Amino acid sequence: MIRASNPTPVGYFRQRIGFLFCLMLSTALAFSIQAQTLTSPDKNLSLQFTLQEGGVPTYQLTYKNKPVIRTSRLGLESADVPHFMEGFTLANTEQTTVDEQWEPIWGEQKSIRNHYNELLVTLRQEAQQGRQIRIRFRLFNDGLGFRYEFPRQEQLHYFIVKEEHTEFNLAGDHKIFWIPGDYDTNEYAYQTSQLSQIPGLMEKATHEVHAQHPIKGVPAVQTPSMMKSADGLYINIHEAALINYPAMQLEVDAKNFNMKSHLVPDAVGNKGYLQTNAQTPWRTIVVSDKATDILASRLILNLNEPTAYEDVSWIKPVKYMGVWWEFFVAGKSTWAYSTETNVTLEDDFSQFTPSGRHGATVENVKKYLDFAAEHGFDAVLVEGWNVGWEDWFGKWKENVFDFVTPYPDFDVQELKTYAESKGVKIMMHHETSGSATNYERRLHPAFQFMKDNGYTSVKTGYVGKIIPRGEHHDGQWMVNHYIHVARTAAEYGIMINSHEAVRPTGLHRTFPNWLAQESARGTEFESMGGLAPDHTTILPFTRLMGGPMDYTPGIFQLDLSHYGTGSNQRVNTTLVKQLAYYVTMYSPLQMAADMPENYSRFMDAFQFIKEVAIDWDDTWVLEAEPGDYVTIARKAKGKNEWYVGGITDENARQAQIPFNYLPAGKTYVATIYADGKDASWQKNEQSYTIRQVLVTSKSRLKQQLAAGGGVAISIREASREEMKKLRKL
Amino acid sequence: MIRASNPTPVGYFRQRIGFLFCLMLSTALAFSIQAQTLTSPDKNLSLQFTLQEGGVPTYQLTYKNKPVIRTSRLGLESADVPHFMEGFTLANTEQTTVDEQWEPIWGEQKSIRNHYNELLVTLRQEAQQGRQIRIRFRLFNDGLGFRYEFPRQEQLHYFIVKEEHTEFNLAGDHKIFWIPGDYDTNEYAYQTSQLSQIPGLMEKATHEVHAQHPIKGVPAVQTPSMMKSADGLYINIHEAALINYPAMQLEVDAKNFNMKSHLVPDAVGNKGYLQTNAQTPWRTIVVSDKATDILASRLILNLNEPTAYEDVSWIKPVKYMGVWWEFFVAGKSTWAYSTETNVTLEDDFSQFTPSGRHGATVENVKKYLDFAAEHGFDAVLVEGWNVGWEDWFGKWKENVFDFVTPYPDFDVQELKTYAESKGVKIMMHHETSGSATNYERRLHPAFQFMKDNGYTSVKTGYVGKIIPRGEHHDGQWMVNHYIHVARTAAEYGIMINSHEAVRPTGLHRTFPNWLAQESARGTEFESMGGLAPDHTTILPFTRLMGGPMDYTPGIFQLDLSHYGTGSNQRVNTTLVKQLAYYVTMYSPLQMAADMPENYSRFMDAFQFIKEVAIDWDDTWVLEAEPGDYVTIARKAKGKNEWYVGGITDENARQAQIPFNYLPAGKTYVATIYADGKDASWQKNEQSYTIRQVLVTSKSRLKQQLAAGGGVAISIREASREEMKKLRKL
Repeated sequence: MIRASNPTPVGYFRQRIGFLFCLMLSTALAFSIQAQTLTSPDKNLSLQFTLQEGGVPTYQLTYKNKPVIRTSRLGLESADVPHFMEGFTLANTEQTTVDEQWEPIWGEQKSIRNHYNELLVTLRQEAQQGRQIRIRFRLFNDGLGFRYEFPRQEQLHYFIVKEEHTEFNLAGDHKIFWIPGDYDTNEYAYQTSQLSQIPGLMEKATHEVHAQHPIKGVPAVQTPSMMKSADGLYINIHEAALINYPAMQLEVDAKNFNMKSHLVPDAVGNKGYLQTNAQTPWRTIVVSDKATDILASRLILNLNEPTAYEDVSWIKPVKYMGVWWEFFVAGKSTWAYSTETNVTLEDDFSQFTPSGRHGATVENVKKYLDFAAEHGFDAVLVEGWNVGWEDWFGKWKENVFDFVTPYPDFDVQELKTYAESKGVKIMMHHETSGSATNYERRLHPAFQFMKDNGYTSVKTGYVGKIIPRGEHHDGQWMVNHYIHVARTAAEYGIMINSHEAVRPTGLHRTFPNWLAQESARGTEFESMGGLAPDHTTILPFTRLMGGPMDYTPGIFQLDLSHYGTGSNQRVNTTLVKQLAYYVTMYSPLQMAADMPENYSRFMDAFQFIKEVAIDWDDTWVLEAEPGDYVTIARKAKGKNEWYVGGITDENARQAQIPFNYLPAGKTYVATIYADGKDASWQKNEQSYTIRQVLVTSKSRLKQQLAAGGGVAISIREASREEMKKLRKL
Repeated sequence: MIRASNPTPVGYFRQRIGFLFCLMLSTALAFSIQAQTLTSPDKNLSLQFTLQEGGVPTYQLTYKNKPVIRTSRLGLESADVPHFMEGFTLANTEQTTVDEQWEPIWGEQKSIRNHYNELLVTLRQEAQQGRQIRIRFRLFNDGLGFRYEFPRQEQLHYFIVKEEHTEFNLAGDHKIFWIPGDYDTNEYAYQTSQLSQIPGLMEKATHEVHAQHPIKGVPAVQTPSMMKSADGLYINIHEAALINYPAMQLEVDAKNFNMKSHLVPDAVGNKGYLQTNAQTPWRTIVVSDKATDILASRLILNLNEPTAYEDVSWIKPVKYMGVWWEFFVAGKSTWAYSTETNVTLEDDFSQFTPSGRHGATVENVKKYLDFAAEHGFDAVLVEGWNVGWEDWFGKWKENVFDFVTPYPDFDVQELKTYAESKGVKIMMHHETSGSATNYERRLHPAFQFMKDNGYTSVKTGYVGKIIPRGEHHDGQWMVNHYIHVARTAAEYGIMINSHEAVRPTGLHRTFPNWLAQESARGTEFESMGGLAPDHTTILPFTRLMGGPMDYTPGIFQLDLSHYGTGSNQRVNTTLVKQLAYYVTMYSPLQMAADMPENYSRFMDAFQFIKEVAIDWDDTWVLEAEPGDYVTIARKAKGKNEWYVGGITDENARQAQIPFNYLPAGKTYVATIYADGKDASWQKNEQSYTIRQVLVTSKSRLKQQLAAGGGVAISIREASREEMKKLRKL
């Protein structure tokens, strides 16, 4: 049994600057303006907390003396007890410094530094029998996190949150990468605009997505919200450690460049039910004048709690293939077994006439298992294996799946034996159709079934309106549901890959079996209208700030008309850009999403997917600009192997790739997968070159990327023969 | 393994009178008035189904040519597809007769006759692509059941019920025994009035009850709704087989003496989500000119499906005591362990200071186990054994109990060993506080904990507002929840006693491990304001029509000032009336609710509780008038023992008790527990006499019952000595 070592004692020290002052609560002082200042360890960031006239708490934030957040209110409105908005006096403040290292179970770095100065403000509402709340600010070199805390006290046991009123008053009409506020989906296409343009673009931006529930009456955007100021500041607003609370969205006052928290409501219109001790998630503002710093930030992970599990030895990153993309392209196969249109779990599916197009057949799954085993994959996802897919969607149907009954042509035992003989796992699929109550009812039997049949990971799905009816994907109840599923899965040694769940907030630190999530527009949309070429240059600055994404890259057959079934859809990238994603889109769970027959036609390019690591000792963000390009280098965990991925948007560009992260004094072989000269996302997208060159830590590569293209590089130490044979860069 | 034998082949025959006619669907016929008539096997009841102008379905019902239900509309309004209200043509009708016997797993009779004539009407909506629904009428000698059926068809897969519009247009201003319509509670005190008086009494009737949600805007009452017409007809309206549908309440038009179905809504205001094949529960109208026939009716049971379980050998009636009444009287003890007011399941309760008044201690439980073992009880209920009782109520708190963690002074293992040594079971208690989602999440571990620790029955509770928030105790989601709990319990060999669940509708036939329910005002209210002396003469005609009640009778210390803790409450019965309840209030689960020390003072009277059977070969309702009196005789299952119970309301009366149900030609000893001459519910309530007399099938007893009093009789064959020694009645 390996015990999670969080935090490691190495490099750990905690210094209490301690209790600065404790105000005598005289009437005279009660409502005067009082300010507290906190600076980041490197002094670049400065936070000021101020209690304004009337006892209204506010904060402001500067970076290198530039305003990031202008004076902004803090507070919560409650539904059942007096509000937490004003009438506060300062009861106490305390400053602390923490500087420690800790090791994630898996991740982008072997070791993470958690270094911040903290200001803990205790506020007292005299008119509410001296009721107290706290606001805890943690200022890192890369940004600010703060949260509200409600200590256990006689004056406050339980309360209902009506709304949180945290303001983010921005300093100008920033450029922003955004999707519309919505209680149920994160699968909108990104918009790039100025803050002031948001209201005018809202209607267009709120295009149709399954089970959507856009925020009405006020323009709003989702987090992670990525902004760039006219004077070059990069600002990212999100949250960390979303537990027992609804997700935060941001209302936008486009005239004053202000944002304000808007929590996702429950079925009766309340936002959250809290019991003291309680705290909100952390509100996070990552700031830098370098875009690469935003991607390198570990602030959100640092604000999450260490792992909740004793034994984490069974948690492993997973590289997988799947009976999946064939459902999206060409109508090659289907999730459903028959063409019935009205089925129940009690039906005898063996009595239905098979459509002949069912994907999850023994024969087809074996084909994937063979290929996956031959090429060293850990697992094969199989969707559509269980009864109920004939009419699973859009019915708000509670008993939609049972997670244990296979279709007649999916022989669980035969495939278990076959997969074991090949040394490959089958990845379970639990689509809930949003019927979370049904899933919870069946969770223990479903996980027991997995355990009995050798499945160690599951892709969960929430496509549809939520049951409990009236609840939303991103509300407090569902937030707790996803965590309940992750924790229960851990009891069975099962890893989770959740789709359509609330977007991540770094909880994979605490629940490391929750390997990855979707919670954004992923590869599947390439078959349904396509993704914009800049989509994946935005995702790392938005969705991925919260945690890994199961983006499902690796599509080689990019022109879907290839299948001859009338589709004229195109995947809007070059083939090489698909390779680069394995590095630019960090995830401990990576899929090779295309079908074996497509990989077989490009085995030399497929070699990169086979080799690329999915867990890392270290990461270097080499170049980045949201909406334009991202280039990242990573060192494989425990191996002298490095991988580089670079992508660009619809514009061709020359990537500048240093190798200074390689240990000095040695020579390495870099295998460079590059777009062909004639390639672009619109034409000759499968054109690529592969070359090998010798590099050292001093080398520097100028690599041309096609429009909508990319570059992928694998690096390892050169053998003597290679040093003779290969040319230097 | 014993297999449930439902229905038995004995006495079974099915005769299809068959297909009467199938209309040619000509335009000419489409909307003309068409009537179908069905009579009960004994010809007393006559149902007429009529398709009125515009294709509106209606029915009417007569009993011995007296109108029971005047022409009343049938139909449903849907939220997403065209309504099922009008535009129907008659596509087909079919009549069938069934006459069979079946044997319940446990019950009031060993064998039940199911004898009815059925009319199945198929209706077609031409304007909705020929969409069809069916209405199935079953006419028994004791009443009518009918339901809507929605066959699987291309035109109808899924739909949302907005409201059911079933009318019950009554023939006059009947006397009615009623409680106000409410989505969450059945624990109102009964009102007795004329139909026309309901609106005027509604405010008074809607007194405060925990977690109530009275129907707004229209006077409404709950079912079972018991009425009596001026010309002596007894009419009872309820429902049977409430599965996957909300409970029906009745809106009252007090001017026209009309009632109309009103379904309990869900969190978003819809009433039900159905998938074809689907059907509503049966709407039941039990009718007779004899009140005793109402209580003898098995119509609701007959309309439920046979047991869903293969193995029912583990399902046994239970007579039990409990650490329970001491919580209600005198503040003798408490559910909570400590005086903390803000606790969570994560707290270390051993760190809290015990209040010294905790009821579920090892010592106290052993006292009950000793007494229960000595007197032949099956089980001892223990409430307040598990952590969380300090602040469990009224917080809408989701993680309120975990059902597996005992308080520090409740040693599960020690009590398991002790109970086993005594041959008594401990009855588990699962209070959910209405947090059904929390219960479902923890259900499997909770039942596994029971299995591991030797518990075979559980009392469940739903005191509080429901979670999923916005759902109601009596809505479709919770209806499914209770059944889910019962079915899951069956997987673990566990029997259920549900409190605060939706009132029963005969589902104990299908799920016989769901032994009993509360779902009405039970004995606990005697400590909280008291029950009216006529309450238990009404319950058999209302609440008990649907199924057994865990009324928790047997209180001997009726004056609660006895405890000297300032309470001046009185249990509003004589001691003997408490004995009579074991016969008049049928249940396979019967509690001796008082404390051992109180029974010890009246061991001769306690003898009746020790002896009385809880499962029966047969039942004879000897006398009954709702609101006035009930006298019932029953034969113990498989034994030559008979028990008689008689109760009266606030008026003294002379019960007329025949013995003609005893086999002729033998002499029996009747032990008669009678109110003392000076007894009444208000004074000398503990005064009683016990005498033994010889009776035969020809005997007839005139027995005086005190005001608020009763009589209890046990009967067995006389020995020779007794025949000599005892006098004849």
